[in-house]
Amino acid sequence: MSTCIFCRIAAGEIPATILHQDDEVVAFSDLTPQAPFHALVIPKRHVSTLNDLASADDALVGRLVRVGATLAQERGYGVRGYRTVFNCNADAGQSVFHVHLHVLAGRSLTWPPG
Amino acid sequence: MSTCIFCRIAAGEIPATILHQDDEVVAFSDLTPQAPFHALVIPKRHVSTLNDLASADDALVGRLVRVGATLAQERGYGVRGYRTVFNCNADAGQSVFHVHLHVLAGRSLTWPPG
Repeated sequence: MSTCIFCRIAAGEIPATILHQDDEVVAFSDLTPQAPFHALVIPKRHVSTLNDLASADDALVGRLVRVGATLAQERGYGVRGYRTVFNCNADAGQSVFHVHLHVLAGRSLTWPPG
Repeated sequence: MSTCIFCRIAAGEIPATILHQDDEVVAFSDLTPQAPFHALVIPKRHVSTLNDLASADDALVGRLVRVGATLAQERGYGVRGYRTVFNCNADAGQSVFHVHLHVLAGRSLTWPPG
């Protein structure tokens, strides 16, 4: 059994509010939402950080973004807008070392982005 | 001649501090940096917002992220970390309607991300 909490969510071993699931990608609600809509989109395959991406992962990473964008649009946030964020390592506050895309929507998001 | 400022930067018609350039992708320094390192990574092809992405764009979008991650790592920010951000439409403060990835590094980035 994996010790990675996001691998365990992807495997259905830990409950989460699942928003999307397919062969490669799972999306679920962030437990500490920072906006009215705050989803996490992850690859099912374990990748620790953005530093570990190879060219063979490009399509998968693009899919994470497109799944996130689609979820926001399906909930009516396409026109108002939304922000997507990847955090890598300590300066960005990455807390789970399994690549995950934050998708935030439903309020005006300020600048700078943290 | 395009009226899109990022298309014009990609075409070399408007000067910018170019950090990376290849057949599909251009990266350059943000003119109003929000961190010691703040790059924008764009596709040369015009895509207005994340709402306009199709599955055929997945590899390109993943490449934007990987180019941004590589630029941050090349400058020594891989271990400390960095954040990548896509803004879509008004709630996220998107100001140029040509998809662009922000890559921020060199300081501790707070949460929420805006």
